[in-house]
Amino acid sequence: MNSAPPPLSLEDYVQGIRAGDHRILARAITLIESRKPADAVLAQTLLARLLPETGKSIRVGITGAPGAGKSTLIDSLGIYLLERGRQVAVLAVDPSSKVSGGSILGDKSRMTRLAQEARAYIRPSPSAQSLGGVSRRTREGLLLCEAAGFDVVLIETVGVGQSEMVVADMVDAFVVLLLPGAGDELQGIKKGLLELADIVAVNKADGDSLPKARDTCKEYAAALRYLRPRSPNWKPRALSVSALTGTGLADLWELLEQCHETLQKSGELEERRREQLRCWMWSLIGERLMDAFRSHDAVKAQLAATERAVIEGKTTASQAAAVLLALFGIECPRGD
Amino acid sequence: MNSAPPPLSLEDYVQGIRAGDHRILARAITLIESRKPADAVLAQTLLARLLPETGKSIRVGITGAPGAGKSTLIDSLGIYLLERGRQVAVLAVDPSSKVSGGSILGDKSRMTRLAQEARAYIRPSPSAQSLGGVSRRTREGLLLCEAAGFDVVLIETVGVGQSEMVVADMVDAFVVLLLPGAGDELQGIKKGLLELADIVAVNKADGDSLPKARDTCKEYAAALRYLRPRSPNWKPRALSVSALTGTGLADLWELLEQCHETLQKSGELEERRREQLRCWMWSLIGERLMDAFRSHDAVKAQLAATERAVIEGKTTASQAAAVLLALFGIECPRGD
Repeated sequence: MNSAPPPLSLEDYVQGIRAGDHRILARAITLIESRKPADAVLAQTLLARLLPETGKSIRVGITGAPGAGKSTLIDSLGIYLLERGRQVAVLAVDPSSKVSGGSILGDKSRMTRLAQEARAYIRPSPSAQSLGGVSRRTREGLLLCEAAGFDVVLIETVGVGQSEMVVADMVDAFVVLLLPGAGDELQGIKKGLLELADIVAVNKADGDSLPKARDTCKEYAAALRYLRPRSPNWKPRALSVSALTGTGLADLWELLEQCHETLQKSGELEERRREQLRCWMWSLIGERLMDAFRSHDAVKAQLAATERAVIEGKTTASQAAAVLLALFGIECPRGD
Repeated sequence: MNSAPPPLSLEDYVQGIRAGDHRILARAITLIESRKPADAVLAQTLLARLLPETGKSIRVGITGAPGAGKSTLIDSLGIYLLERGRQVAVLAVDPSSKVSGGSILGDKSRMTRLAQEARAYIRPSPSAQSLGGVSRRTREGLLLCEAAGFDVVLIETVGVGQSEMVVADMVDAFVVLLLPGAGDELQGIKKGLLELADIVAVNKADGDSLPKARDTCKEYAAALRYLRPRSPNWKPRALSVSALTGTGLADLWELLEQCHETLQKSGELEERRREQLRCWMWSLIGERLMDAFRSHDAVKAQLAATERAVIEGKTTASQAAAVLLALFGIECPRGD
């Protein structure tokens, strides 16, 4: 039988997180993920209180196709960092996963060594929700982890949906993990994924696949030259690693630190984070406006028929939009 | 002295366009571009009337960095098509241009031969407006051109902004025009542009630059293999052309027809066009919701201060969004 733990006060949360108490951090993230209005108010008050203590970690996004070895890499990299005195938190993002809030073991069992370390914190993906919802929860979870003293936050995302874009927009450095053997494998990752990469890591640089991993790494280094870098200050780099043997982990971390430092020194890091906050506010507004629109009774009643009329060429998109917006109470005399 | 021509009735427009009268087509597109509410009503009624007569052209988008030779290519390709009995319309899209609605000569003088052909129709970019506004006008202009009997509509866009995305979403085949010499030149085009390409054409395959154009073409053919194609049915292709001498124009047109035919036979063309209509309606709704939000008095009064508080870390993005949305009349108990 699960008995709910006694509720925590705002002060309990604040003090617990400041003290780096992982259980309280976990409960705070659960609070953020809750859909109860009262929880939402408390969660936002808590976040506002802790905001001044956030922003001090190296925020790293890691993506890759299923099977590329993300969990193993994060497991190995996490242990490597713990051994060097770092405090490591891992947040998983997978909007498509049906994992419920309770099945933490799902993610923990993928990172077997790190999960046993009391100094590391692993948080599974929030249960399946809208991309916007997962995005908000992950951003806020990241802030809570920073307030709890973690100085490296690894955000893992599956490279097959839209979540990489969202994650790339909340981190300082974005790693795309690939398997040896270019071309075909690329078909498994999303279009545009390479362009988000600050670092491309080719996994399985071990045993028989070592030469292939090195070749693939060279090919990607060449491919990266075809892409315009995201940052004016950081040129994307490719390297080969082995999550299994640990080969290349030190190089990977060095590159990540270099990337972070380069952005910091140039002022781009601060500028980027400010811009991320601004965009985040606007994307929340956009999503919530659209939610309000879609769930508006009069709109809902007409939506399917109107959409069908547009698709079948019976009305223009402009006319259809104007009709639906009028139902919502917005008149467009000439809304561009 | 300009004296305004007498106004046309709905029937005048419908009959004129059906008869392929270019002057009436031009006035209909001006009507679509007008911001007067009465014009808007007439324009939408006209479009709705003509909708059944649309959809029959090959819709081609052409983009490239400034200087790549887009105008010369369109000029040459247009003449090539006219000689083969095609009816060619050219729509220019350049949201950043300050060209007023009147300076048609600006675009016409760029396409000197085509501009002299009575059978071709060239329409310059609508005067500088929001991307959304230009997008709507271009889509609707395209429909009017189709109703007027044009069976090839070339939509030209400058490959440095966001307009290529918008154009790629309204055409059947998208051509990216590049200059010989890879790498450096790529810096002049927008990140992600190659991924939109159905066809990459390397210009200036003439005179001294012929070998370089061919080499560049090979490099892009290789680069395209790194990108996931937009269509499950069409594999992006690279070729070299000379807009100046006409070399490769026949191949370019053959590829465009192949691309169109492949999509048509597979059913993807119809599916894509239906989806384009649906997305277009939703993007209009999204833009107009956001416009209404931004121009709402209470929101406007608080916007700058709220945005600043978010950027400076004094409030969370969620809190700020909730405050502004409440001013707009939308309460978010827990808007994901």
